[in-house]
Amino acid sequence: MNITILGTGMVAQTIATKLIQLGHTVTLGTRNPEETKNRNTPNQRTGQSFYDWYSKHDGVLLKSLDTSANKADLIINATSGQASIEALEAVGEGNLAGKILIDISNPLDFSQGMPPSLFISNTYSLGEKIQERFQDLKVVKSLNTMNTYIMMHPESIDGDHSVFVSGNDDNAKIEVIALLKSIGWKEENIIDLGDISTARGTEMLLPIWLRLWKALGHTNFNFHIQQAK
Amino acid sequence: MNITILGTGMVAQTIATKLIQLGHTVTLGTRNPEETKNRNTPNQRTGQSFYDWYSKHDGVLLKSLDTSANKADLIINATSGQASIEALEAVGEGNLAGKILIDISNPLDFSQGMPPSLFISNTYSLGEKIQERFQDLKVVKSLNTMNTYIMMHPESIDGDHSVFVSGNDDNAKIEVIALLKSIGWKEENIIDLGDISTARGTEMLLPIWLRLWKALGHTNFNFHIQQAK
Repeated sequence: MNITILGTGMVAQTIATKLIQLGHTVTLGTRNPEETKNRNTPNQRTGQSFYDWYSKHDGVLLKSLDTSANKADLIINATSGQASIEALEAVGEGNLAGKILIDISNPLDFSQGMPPSLFISNTYSLGEKIQERFQDLKVVKSLNTMNTYIMMHPESIDGDHSVFVSGNDDNAKIEVIALLKSIGWKEENIIDLGDISTARGTEMLLPIWLRLWKALGHTNFNFHIQQAK
Repeated sequence: MNITILGTGMVAQTIATKLIQLGHTVTLGTRNPEETKNRNTPNQRTGQSFYDWYSKHDGVLLKSLDTSANKADLIINATSGQASIEALEAVGEGNLAGKILIDISNPLDFSQGMPPSLFISNTYSLGEKIQERFQDLKVVKSLNTMNTYIMMHPESIDGDHSVFVSGNDDNAKIEVIALLKSIGWKEENIIDLGDISTARGTEMLLPIWLRLWKALGHTNFNFHIQQAK
C-alpha cells in the first residue's frame, strides 16, 4: 500500500520503519521537506536526528503536506494533537476525501505543566473533531493508548494486551484491523469500540497512562482488557 | 475492623456481604434507616430488594449517616458520585476526622443521557474534591474502575488484572492495600499511582469502561496493566 504518515518526529519514524519492513511504500508529509531533511538535532530519547534516520531509510519519500497524500491508500496522523487539524488542512480536503485516516494523536495540553491535561475531553474528542472538520475522510482512531514502539512491536510485551479501534465507517475499520494484524496484533486483542465518539474513551486513557509512566518508571506497558472466561 | 459503608444500594450490599464473611463488623449509613429497612423494590439486576438482603444479613447494622461512622476504623463511600459530598456532610466532619475513607465513587453525569459523561474530570477529580472539602479525612481512591462483584471477587476474572490506589496519606494506603489483599487482590496487581490527584486518571477510565460494556455486551472484565518483562 501507499501509506502517508503526517509528521516526521520519533513517532512517525518508528511507524515508517515498521511499514517499510512490511513492504509498504511510505511517504512522510511535512511542512517544509528541505528543512526537515537537514534537521540534525538529536532526539532526546534515541540520540538520533531526523537527518541520521532519513539517511538510513532511502525508501522513504519526504514531501510537503499538500503533495504528500494524493496517491495515498491510507494516511496516518502522527502529528501532535495540537497541530493535527492545521496539518490536515495543509494536506487539503481534496486530497483527504474518501481516504482512511488512522488517527493516533492525543489532545494533550502541556500549557499547565506536567503531566499534561487534555484540551478536548469528556463530551467531545479530537477524533470526533477531525471527523467533523473533514466529513469525507474516514477517521479511525487507534493505537493512541500506548508508546510508539509497542504500537509497531506488540510482541515486545509478553502476553495479551489490547488495541482499540473507533470509527464510523465499518469498511475503513476492517482495513485498519487488517493492517494491525499484519503488524503483529492478535485478532482477539483488537477491540472495536464502535463509532468515532468512542474515541472519548481511548483519549481519556491518557491521564492514567501518564501517571502509570511515573508510578512504574517506564512506558513499556499497555492496557489489557481481562475478561472472565 | 469496624467498617462503615455509606450507601445501601447493590454496591454497598455486595461490599457488606464480603466484609462480613471476612469477619468485619459492618455498619451501613443511610439517610433514613427505617425507610431503607422496609425498601422492597427489587433491584433491576439481582431481583432482590434491600428488605430481602437485609433480612438475610442479621449482622449488618443500619444507622443514620450522622451516627454511622463514629466507631468506624474505616469508611467506604459507596454512594453515587452526585450524592457523595452531601452524604459525607451528613456524616459530619467530626466523625470523619482522622479516619480513612475508601472512595469508590465516580463523578458520573447522567443528565445528558447514556453513556454518562463525567461532571468533574481532566483538571480535577471527585477524589480530590472530597479530600479538599474534608481535610482531616484520609481519602484513598480505589476500586472505582470495575464492577462491584469484581471489586470483592477478583478471583472471578482469570489471570492478572489491576486495581489502583490514589491518596495523600501513605499509611492510609498501606491499610487499604492490606484490606485489598485480604479480599483476594494479588499484591503484584495493586498499583499505587501516587497522591489523590492521580484519581483523575482512574475516574477518567469510566468513559472507556462504559463503552467496553456496550462493545463486549457485559461488565465481567477489568483493566490490566500488562508490562514488558
